[in-house]
Amino acid sequence: MDKILLGHGGGGRLSQQLINDMFLRYFDNPVLNSLEDAAALALPHGRIAFTTDSYVVTPRFFPGGNIGKLAICGTVNDLAMRGAYPRYLSAGFIIEEGFSLSELEEIVRTMAHTAAAAGVQIVTGDTKVVGKGAADGMFINTAGIGVLDEHVSISAANAQPGDKVIISGTIGDHGMTILSLREGLSFKANLESDCAPLNGLVGELLRFKQDIHVLRDPTRGGVASTLNEIAASSKTGMMINETSLPLKPQVKASCELLGLDPLHLANEGKLIAVVAGSVAEQVLAVFQGHEYGKDARIIGEVTADTRRVALRTFIGSTRIIDISSGELLPRIC
Amino acid sequence: MDKILLGHGGGGRLSQQLINDMFLRYFDNPVLNSLEDAAALALPHGRIAFTTDSYVVTPRFFPGGNIGKLAICGTVNDLAMRGAYPRYLSAGFIIEEGFSLSELEEIVRTMAHTAAAAGVQIVTGDTKVVGKGAADGMFINTAGIGVLDEHVSISAANAQPGDKVIISGTIGDHGMTILSLREGLSFKANLESDCAPLNGLVGELLRFKQDIHVLRDPTRGGVASTLNEIAASSKTGMMINETSLPLKPQVKASCELLGLDPLHLANEGKLIAVVAGSVAEQVLAVFQGHEYGKDARIIGEVTADTRRVALRTFIGSTRIIDISSGELLPRIC
Repeated sequence: MDKILLGHGGGGRLSQQLINDMFLRYFDNPVLNSLEDAAALALPHGRIAFTTDSYVVTPRFFPGGNIGKLAICGTVNDLAMRGAYPRYLSAGFIIEEGFSLSELEEIVRTMAHTAAAAGVQIVTGDTKVVGKGAADGMFINTAGIGVLDEHVSISAANAQPGDKVIISGTIGDHGMTILSLREGLSFKANLESDCAPLNGLVGELLRFKQDIHVLRDPTRGGVASTLNEIAASSKTGMMINETSLPLKPQVKASCELLGLDPLHLANEGKLIAVVAGSVAEQVLAVFQGHEYGKDARIIGEVTADTRRVALRTFIGSTRIIDISSGELLPRIC
Repeated sequence: MDKILLGHGGGGRLSQQLINDMFLRYFDNPVLNSLEDAAALALPHGRIAFTTDSYVVTPRFFPGGNIGKLAICGTVNDLAMRGAYPRYLSAGFIIEEGFSLSELEEIVRTMAHTAAAAGVQIVTGDTKVVGKGAADGMFINTAGIGVLDEHVSISAANAQPGDKVIISGTIGDHGMTILSLREGLSFKANLESDCAPLNGLVGELLRFKQDIHVLRDPTRGGVASTLNEIAASSKTGMMINETSLPLKPQVKASCELLGLDPLHLANEGKLIAVVAGSVAEQVLAVFQGHEYGKDARIIGEVTADTRRVALRTFIGSTRIIDISSGELLPRIC
């Protein structure tokens, strides 16, 4: 038997086999192994962060990762963006009948590996199987719980005029990788998704305490949407310098060829930090000393010009950075 | 615009519209409304319960509920089955392009109503849209967090020989309702899903503290799978009396007509409690005094006959209650 059958989602013997042979084998930990309806977890006293995302990316495998790596990193990163320490994840699989068991195993193995690298445990899960044609292969939902330190208050509403805006590295890598695979573009050999767990980097930033005002990962909608969301939540503006935006040459070239704006491309291993101007250079140095922040740059600053998010272009003119109206590329994550 | 477009899942302006006009409107609460990457939650000191399920039921609307009601009740009930007080849910939607916005609104409204009835808040969420044909309408994932009292230790591993087995009401109602709708059977007019949040009932049971050994809701796989799971986890057997099993006449008749065993049919508003023999009658009285337990019965007892789960039939013979091997009915929840 090398394919997923309807019975694997039926709650009977086949379900038990799949849980034992696949999920317990790779996600192995005492809480999950107890197979209760809900995981019982002891947490330190205080607040927690809680988030969820579903992952529907196509293709499921891409240079730099697969849907399983994305499902761990995306949820770990959403927790980290509140300044939380990610601890526990759930994993919900919706699988199409006939899906390859060996492909599932590869994805589950990647999830286990990525979770270990990020220091989180998958403690509860669920599998549903739908008939042939009722889903496109597999979708994964993860929800996550993180621990929030008492004094951390990181929020998209905390940007203040004079703050500096830092990006942790090159932009558009994930979006352009998926796009090039999807369209069969010939330059794809040089592209790789940036998909990575950012909680380690964020952990180092937390030493700056109240001076870290905002953290956000510019995924769907790209840097453009994220900057606009921060400005709207904080009731501020932004002025970004085009010449400061870190861009891989192959992403830059692809964008020029296709007429795309890298500010609208998705990222899966990058974060935008809005920090007090007084510590910006020190924060930048911490970024640049970390594996996932070595190409970090200060890309601009927060302004009092309410809700005007603008780009100073390389020729010195200014244009509005608009949030994209819809879907540049469906199923990017 | 009356249909879901790809752009509703794109992270841009259409996504914001959908969030504001639909999810914030119905799920309205301060934590969700802040639209952060993760919800920040203050919890009492101690342990929490954490669980997830995806919901793929077809048809999405049925007598007694819809996929939205199921998505709230199922996760609330999984938390309650650990003796936890459910508090916070996440909601992840995967929607097919072209899905009716008015149908989505009806489902979201039902979720909000059911969450309010169960006393839980939806504090974080996500929406993905996939192309026409890449999903069958809509799938919903919910994850949930509940608060565990310090002294509660309810687990599928806690059944002891001599314990009594209580079912909270009639069995097979949800499974037979979906089956009859799916097959267009003529007797469906009398059938209704039992889908309901059980945390209120469980809250009343918790007064019996350590005498409540196991709680489980017999969903996929039905009472048969649940009894086998408890027996396996607890390293015990079970002896169930067929004549004690509460069954609605129309479910009984339908099972006889179709040759189905009601022990294998799914339930979405029932629970099985394994309790100390000394308090069984008192616990039963509490069940019967509650809206969702008025048809409760003691259906058998836990035996030392390891892993043998048996039924004493109405003619006095004994047969094994086997776990179903696969999928009696796909997409039941």
